[in-house]
Amino acid sequence: MIKPIACVIVALLCLGTAARAEDGYDLWLRYRPLDASGRAVAAAHATAIVAPGTSPTIAVAVAELRRGFAGMAGETPARVETPIAGSILLATPKEAEALGVTRPDLADLGREGFWLHATRAGGKPITAILANSDIGLLYGAFRLLELQEQGVPADGIDVRSAPKLQLRVLDHWDNLDRTVERGYAGQSIWDWWTLPDWKAPRYTDYARANASIGINGAVLNNVNARPESLTARYIAEAAALADVFRPYGIRVYLSARFSAPIELGGLKTADPLDPAVKAWWKAKADEIYRAIPDFGGFLIKANSEGQPGPQDYHRTHADGANLLAEALKRHGGVVMYRAFVYSEKDSEDRAKQAYSDFKPLDGTFADNVIVQVKNGAIDFQPREPFHPLFGAMPRTPLMMEFQITKEYLGQATHLAYLGPLFAETLDSDTFAHGKGSTVARMIEGAVDPQRLTGMAGVANIGADRDWTGSPFNQANWYAFGRFAWDPEGSAKDYADEWARMTFTPDPRFVVPAVDIMMRSREAVVDYMTPLGLAHQMATGSHYGPGPWVSDLTRPEWNPVYYAKADANGIGFDRTATGSDAIAQYAPALARRLADPATTPESELLWFHHLSWDRRMASGRILWDELVAHYDRGVAEVGAMQRDWSALAPYVDADRFAKTTIFLAIQQREAQWWRDASIAWFQSLSHRPLPPGSRAPAHSLGWYRALDFPYAPGH
Amino acid sequence: MIKPIACVIVALLCLGTAARAEDGYDLWLRYRPLDASGRAVAAAHATAIVAPGTSPTIAVAVAELRRGFAGMAGETPARVETPIAGSILLATPKEAEALGVTRPDLADLGREGFWLHATRAGGKPITAILANSDIGLLYGAFRLLELQEQGVPADGIDVRSAPKLQLRVLDHWDNLDRTVERGYAGQSIWDWWTLPDWKAPRYTDYARANASIGINGAVLNNVNARPESLTARYIAEAAALADVFRPYGIRVYLSARFSAPIELGGLKTADPLDPAVKAWWKAKADEIYRAIPDFGGFLIKANSEGQPGPQDYHRTHADGANLLAEALKRHGGVVMYRAFVYSEKDSEDRAKQAYSDFKPLDGTFADNVIVQVKNGAIDFQPREPFHPLFGAMPRTPLMMEFQITKEYLGQATHLAYLGPLFAETLDSDTFAHGKGSTVARMIEGAVDPQRLTGMAGVANIGADRDWTGSPFNQANWYAFGRFAWDPEGSAKDYADEWARMTFTPDPRFVVPAVDIMMRSREAVVDYMTPLGLAHQMATGSHYGPGPWVSDLTRPEWNPVYYAKADANGIGFDRTATGSDAIAQYAPALARRLADPATTPESELLWFHHLSWDRRMASGRILWDELVAHYDRGVAEVGAMQRDWSALAPYVDADRFAKTTIFLAIQQREAQWWRDASIAWFQSLSHRPLPPGSRAPAHSLGWYRALDFPYAPGH
Repeated sequence: MIKPIACVIVALLCLGTAARAEDGYDLWLRYRPLDASGRAVAAAHATAIVAPGTSPTIAVAVAELRRGFAGMAGETPARVETPIAGSILLATPKEAEALGVTRPDLADLGREGFWLHATRAGGKPITAILANSDIGLLYGAFRLLELQEQGVPADGIDVRSAPKLQLRVLDHWDNLDRTVERGYAGQSIWDWWTLPDWKAPRYTDYARANASIGINGAVLNNVNARPESLTARYIAEAAALADVFRPYGIRVYLSARFSAPIELGGLKTADPLDPAVKAWWKAKADEIYRAIPDFGGFLIKANSEGQPGPQDYHRTHADGANLLAEALKRHGGVVMYRAFVYSEKDSEDRAKQAYSDFKPLDGTFADNVIVQVKNGAIDFQPREPFHPLFGAMPRTPLMMEFQITKEYLGQATHLAYLGPLFAETLDSDTFAHGKGSTVARMIEGAVDPQRLTGMAGVANIGADRDWTGSPFNQANWYAFGRFAWDPEGSAKDYADEWARMTFTPDPRFVVPAVDIMMRSREAVVDYMTPLGLAHQMATGSHYGPGPWVSDLTRPEWNPVYYAKADANGIGFDRTATGSDAIAQYAPALARRLADPATTPESELLWFHHLSWDRRMASGRILWDELVAHYDRGVAEVGAMQRDWSALAPYVDADRFAKTTIFLAIQQREAQWWRDASIAWFQSLSHRPLPPGSRAPAHSLGWYRALDFPYAPGH
Repeated sequence: MIKPIACVIVALLCLGTAARAEDGYDLWLRYRPLDASGRAVAAAHATAIVAPGTSPTIAVAVAELRRGFAGMAGETPARVETPIAGSILLATPKEAEALGVTRPDLADLGREGFWLHATRAGGKPITAILANSDIGLLYGAFRLLELQEQGVPADGIDVRSAPKLQLRVLDHWDNLDRTVERGYAGQSIWDWWTLPDWKAPRYTDYARANASIGINGAVLNNVNARPESLTARYIAEAAALADVFRPYGIRVYLSARFSAPIELGGLKTADPLDPAVKAWWKAKADEIYRAIPDFGGFLIKANSEGQPGPQDYHRTHADGANLLAEALKRHGGVVMYRAFVYSEKDSEDRAKQAYSDFKPLDGTFADNVIVQVKNGAIDFQPREPFHPLFGAMPRTPLMMEFQITKEYLGQATHLAYLGPLFAETLDSDTFAHGKGSTVARMIEGAVDPQRLTGMAGVANIGADRDWTGSPFNQANWYAFGRFAWDPEGSAKDYADEWARMTFTPDPRFVVPAVDIMMRSREAVVDYMTPLGLAHQMATGSHYGPGPWVSDLTRPEWNPVYYAKADANGIGFDRTATGSDAIAQYAPALARRLADPATTPESELLWFHHLSWDRRMASGRILWDELVAHYDRGVAEVGAMQRDWSALAPYVDADRFAKTTIFLAIQQREAQWWRDASIAWFQSLSHRPLPPGSRAPAHSLGWYRALDFPYAPGH
């Protein structure tokens, strides 16, 4: 045997160019050589792999274990028939029993859960990965590799885990021309032009990464869907991707355009109650399932932002959803029907409209429909109160929709770890069935039992070498997967796991890096939209500040609609004296939100219009408090920069440099956000800046004149 | 010392994921371990590196040598002060002399040439890289590494080489939104959104690759230019790239929009004779040179395909070019002024218009203007006769413009090595000064001496991992660089060099691979546009056949304009009975082209309209000959597939698979081209297919109905 440390040295000496820079491609699956103690621990699990199963999923699980141990411990465990001491066993209960393991009871783990623990097979100490299905075994294999990276000794392993949600899905807003709506990491990873012939190796690595965090579905195309996605050509391409993904337990879904029966089928209508329309969708579903037997189903954006939908025919969203559900039902497919709707004409508070449309439909959706609800009622803002539909539709499965791509949180360059954003929504108490009815428990069906559960994340993945445009954006993909597996998990734990695997388990790195991550989202809130402000971004690109924008045709597209700032005060009155949106929440919560004094300051201006002179908890007046938040946001980015700069010894040069430079961009842009916002609001408030707070660097006119016609992603 | 073979084995055992698949990123600079004899040869040069110079260029040359020898020979030569036996010396004549080398005479090598040879320094055998400048030394270092890959022993090295053209430039048709016009390898490699802050490592690798083949300029943005490219923001971004490229001898150029004085400067006119316009350009040039002291200059597309230009003000192209030249002159910049012009209104044969516009301007361009002329008079077709401007403007420097990106030759997927296309144009005899006045010698200034010389290639580079969308597309970038260095070189030699370095020097691979490459372009000509046909591609995308297209607003945009097929015959009469375009060539050539009998059959229908029944050299009638060419093209792709399939033992799995699949796509599409073209022309010729030739698989209507709205690159 070659000594592992010699291995590393020799390899570096020999390979020259092959020992490439850390370019982020490997994500959290880097499997780099562990330190001596880590290798010793890993070697104890690495004598051999026993896996009686023969499916493609077992093959990829074994390959991943071999790859992981080869990288981390310097030795590639052989696959053998019979357990030896120190081997890893991948087995269903029956298979395990046949190999001399006490038959485990895995009834609570369902189809996808696993039990990872030190046990004995025929008297020999082994590490067992047990599950009721091969995909559970694959999930367990990834978890074992993670524990290796953390240095957990074999005999200390005992992890029993099953996902709390069924559908754990990435939504790709990817267009057929390879642009990505709200994508900041290059083109779409789907190269429609060379599919289905060429299945790029990257598709497999995408599937590996998703499986490693439990994601089991991918919607391939933009919710603003083109009808061509449902033509034979693109179905064949989706089928090619489904073939790649299948061993990794990932189903393919497609966004469907509601008017496809007209555009593709030549029908005169897409009325969901029209028999020809029903027949068209049924035939289309049959066609898809012939190509993709495990096709997941459709995602629909209907009657929203110009998309066609059932309301064009004076039908309800339930009529629309059930039309597609009927077509998919006999194949086992589901409809994910988005509740992100707001009318072109309705002057009602935009935040209320989805509830108004969907709440009356509770209980009228078909069995295989799940309604996909954004975390907040507006649109993926740096902070939003949880969406009032959560808790309001007890007889309808609701699926959480988060945005992983940072459309409103600094896009490609700002470091903003979204774990705390996800957790904040999931941990929010809806009070739907009294205290403890958190959003997490609602979507799990733990309060009102549901036949379907799920979480969707709008992907931040593109063709950039590092997948997500920056090293730290990868953490948002990772955390999304973890929260989809366990919505009650901890953002900090997920950050910690990710940082260890993505960089180094050295606590001198992990502790400060996680601290940076955990503070980062609040910094963005502070420098962009503090105190419950929302949607202050520039038009179109949503890049940079545009709080002054008031000239767009639809009122609710304008930032001024959300801040409602004037000489007297600021904020959107959503109490009974205003839009009364708070009435959409459970009474216990609504009562609290009715009074600014019992509304969290972080959401204050979301619910209340208040005088600039209102006294805040800090003792400052609202105007001064607002300015203090902007200043704090800028200062926090400065602190993040300083803390990061101290981590150079623990990070490879390329990722260190890129992060350093991106933080410098963030610092400059945080200052821009702060200065432009203050310049604007001060032009209304006519109040002086509090002592110690600097005047904006430029005039308001200067900020208003800035223009970025080539901003990516829109 | 560790034995090299042990190195490789140990490295592969140890590194796991780090020993990555061959994904094409390393291009021809792979520096993979040589076989035992190769390593022994390389080791003889690898004892040390002596480089007295201190410039950044010397630093990158030494780094490249170290990297190369580390990869190929397993040992990294140290940089030392004094030559030892077996060391490499990088030195100017004076530096070499100071180290005990007989002072070399390099007068003939100019600034960029080098002399690479085995010699002695202070009595010790060394390999000397000698040049008059540091950039010459870098070029020599790359050439030495290439010789190592070929296994040339140290004492057998004697290469004396200097470029025959001054400007060796890539034209990037890259837009500010990162789309690439006619780009088939992903987004632009320029990430304008993170520049100038983030200088991606890829920019350095781009510069390395270009320097390795002698390219010394890059036009960063599309000739269809946006005015914003000349604003402070984008100048700063260009400056950041210039900083990366500078050590590699690569200057940055920008495409300039002629109307920028109006759009950016707020002037009422862009008239080249207007003093305010002159002042604006002068100030703009000064601004650019403050940021980029070695800025190369401007590329201009004016009065062509909707671009503004001097003719908008009733001025000549010389007036336009000289306006910009004057602004650049005191800084040493040049204007590359494109002759690709054809009028919106002029009904004259499109192939004649550039000559008509530019020929009368001969001798009127400023000293620092070079007119950039496409290889043919239409537009980068699979085959075109050389452009009649070559040889027609003795008092004007003409720069060759080739298209490396395969807009008209199968785009991303078809294997078409363009070396023979480049060579065919360069080797064409203009007869401008009697026999031997080849295009190559004309652009070298070897016939009419010129103060500027150059060659431009429209880049095929994008953000795809393998840079060019397929392994074999890399060869076109490589060959372009080689031809720009020596326009009289051999396409086959360049293919051979490229194949050795990109794959393996094993002749069992190289010989058949080069054979595939050398046949590939003619195959494309045959299945797309045989016998001198041109521009038969579908509208917009130029993807796939569209010979029937006749409904575009401008006649010369329609394929039917080029083929002029009807019941009687086919071809464009460019003799005196037709457009008389042949009169633009030198009389000796024009006489030959006036008669179909003395016109090469490969260009026959470019110059002549002929009866379907005309008897060809083969004895077949023209119609049968046309069909035979289509059939031959399809058959050739089949042969390429078969020959490639035998090369599996010599190629890594990933690149083998990708090429195999792309060849299968090419086979299918060659058949499509052949079938659709025959279906169309047969509908006009009403003649039967010759015996043995199969009817098209589908009806003409079927082919005409095909549509590819999301084709890339347009």
